[in-house]
Amino acid sequence: MTLRDLETPALILDRGKLDQNLAAMRDRVIGLGATLRPHVKTAKSVDVVRRAVRPGAGGITVSTLKEAEQFFAAGYRDILYAVGIAPNKLEHVAALRRQGCDLTVILDNLEAAAAVADKSAALGTTLPVLIEIDSDGHRAGVKPDDTRLLEIGRVLGANLRGVMTHAGGSYDCQSIREIRVYADRERAQAVLCAEKLRAAGLRCPIVSVGSTPTATYAQSLAGVTEVRVGVYMFFDLFMAGLGVCAPSDIALSVLCSVIGHQPGKHWIITDAGWMALSRDRGTAGQKVDQGYGVVCDINGEPMDDLIVSGANQEHGIVSRRDGGIIDAARYPVGTLLRVLPNHACATAAQHGAYHVVDGTTYVQWVWPRFSGW
Amino acid sequence: MTLRDLETPALILDRGKLDQNLAAMRDRVIGLGATLRPHVKTAKSVDVVRRAVRPGAGGITVSTLKEAEQFFAAGYRDILYAVGIAPNKLEHVAALRRQGCDLTVILDNLEAAAAVADKSAALGTTLPVLIEIDSDGHRAGVKPDDTRLLEIGRVLGANLRGVMTHAGGSYDCQSIREIRVYADRERAQAVLCAEKLRAAGLRCPIVSVGSTPTATYAQSLAGVTEVRVGVYMFFDLFMAGLGVCAPSDIALSVLCSVIGHQPGKHWIITDAGWMALSRDRGTAGQKVDQGYGVVCDINGEPMDDLIVSGANQEHGIVSRRDGGIIDAARYPVGTLLRVLPNHACATAAQHGAYHVVDGTTYVQWVWPRFSGW
Repeated sequence: MTLRDLETPALILDRGKLDQNLAAMRDRVIGLGATLRPHVKTAKSVDVVRRAVRPGAGGITVSTLKEAEQFFAAGYRDILYAVGIAPNKLEHVAALRRQGCDLTVILDNLEAAAAVADKSAALGTTLPVLIEIDSDGHRAGVKPDDTRLLEIGRVLGANLRGVMTHAGGSYDCQSIREIRVYADRERAQAVLCAEKLRAAGLRCPIVSVGSTPTATYAQSLAGVTEVRVGVYMFFDLFMAGLGVCAPSDIALSVLCSVIGHQPGKHWIITDAGWMALSRDRGTAGQKVDQGYGVVCDINGEPMDDLIVSGANQEHGIVSRRDGGIIDAARYPVGTLLRVLPNHACATAAQHGAYHVVDGTTYVQWVWPRFSGW
Repeated sequence: MTLRDLETPALILDRGKLDQNLAAMRDRVIGLGATLRPHVKTAKSVDVVRRAVRPGAGGITVSTLKEAEQFFAAGYRDILYAVGIAPNKLEHVAALRRQGCDLTVILDNLEAAAAVADKSAALGTTLPVLIEIDSDGHRAGVKPDDTRLLEIGRVLGANLRGVMTHAGGSYDCQSIREIRVYADRERAQAVLCAEKLRAAGLRCPIVSVGSTPTATYAQSLAGVTEVRVGVYMFFDLFMAGLGVCAPSDIALSVLCSVIGHQPGKHWIITDAGWMALSRDRGTAGQKVDQGYGVVCDINGEPMDDLIVSGANQEHGIVSRRDGGIIDAARYPVGTLLRVLPNHACATAAQHGAYHVVDGTTYVQWVWPRFSGW
């Protein structure tokens, strides 16, 4: 089977680029003395993640309990659920732990800590927790200078296993130098919080940090035990715009067909709309707005400075970045194109499988992926 | 089971509002003398669509061949696939027709028409086609004054079954009066093209039009045989912003849990991020920007002028529209909230099932939905 045998739209994954991205990050994190705990939220595929860490050979990070279930069923035991725990999920967490899954949760407030402490006491077990630290004002977490840090630690008692933070603010950096500042602060604030907890007599073996930008440019991981990264597996136009990868590192694309033209507007119409590409327009806020994605030929090479300039549910509008004339004869109806995504997590989520190629159009495997909660 | 028993995030559908929306549109279109051909691309659920049209009792519209397959398997025979046909899908179309599915495709160019004519000749069968008309410059279609209209009709020969258009430009209207202009033009241009084809001796029994805004405000459907609408089943904030429904008509919402607060920023953090809400920010271009959605209490009543002002993959940031102070004590960790979506098609697509309520928090049914191609 080749790409020419697929019905479009279809999600394509280049195995060579994937493996190269995985190896580069693994070498980098291990070289800095920490452990890599890949985040499976981007891939949501055992076949993909297996290449990053083999079942039983290391821990993973998940963004949903469905991911925890699927990966536990595939042989992964050491799993960190890295979204602040909601009380209505504690029973599910406890059930997974009873089955033998070493599942850890996170939280950043006293109410959730009390809910965990109550549940663990009621069940006569521990429910391991990392306290989420806010290292950059991005989203959630306790500030290192907030007195509640120690209060939460004390409420958690034996459930406390460490601290974690995510420098999500690094996604808005304007330079590599700035990403390095975020990376250093992410590390420093997490280590500081761990030291505060330890100084108060609390157990804090785990210091977990991570985002793909900061992990790519961190110069030290002193005091950090593990690094969480997800989008590095595939990369995307947003990461390329940030300077975290080259466009040629992007392993993911959406195959589509030309279904018509609007010559007066210099448009090519394709069958990959936002349902196939996602509604993500993250590059709109970057220096170069990539529309809904950069258009490549069937071999994955960008062509004629084409981007997906508009998208409806199942229609993509392709035009030149400068709005200029397109030679429609170069793109007859039926032409196959590949679109590089703005945001790999969002685009992959729209599909049920990866069609895996390796530099050619030959489809070596079809790897299923899942979605939902 | 009630909403309090669900793990969040979860997709909620109010059956009373759904049924009211379905009845209003059915009455409206039948009252104007046309047939309703509901578009299943929003719901992608046999349980939902069955309430709009029973299997065997009328036709439907689909946006993917997967929808055609699923609904054909559920007893629907008369199906219009309303995205310009790509040559790589013709074999699949022919296979569905051989199984007894009366599947019609659309196209707007000579290359696709030739592909259909060749395939139908090779198979010794007909592959029914509607020619897509561009009534408003929105996206695809042949302009009524384009000489290729008749050429396409002639190439199609016995495969020609009629014309169709979609006034997608109506989504950008600034007033009801303007929507009426789009509705009248949609009707007039489709009818004009049908008359041109008939005057040239070509068969054109079907004149198909539709978009939820134009169908809601059309004053005449003279010459039209059928109307296609999809989002009317659920409605959403975008349609409310356009004046096509009231916010209280919106039948869809996403249930989520409060998982933390950032009091210094007046933020509530929830477990419904863009994976649960979709990345759709369509209301950003309207008079009132609803962020990633309007926040309601567990009964579906908007509260405290809260919106989802930011979203990451599995985190929602809820704040007051004016950025003002929030009384966090009103929203303790674990509080259940419901978020009205910007765009029902995009939000529903992120979920695998509808949890069906009827004005209360009691979950009457769980209706599966599908996705993909």
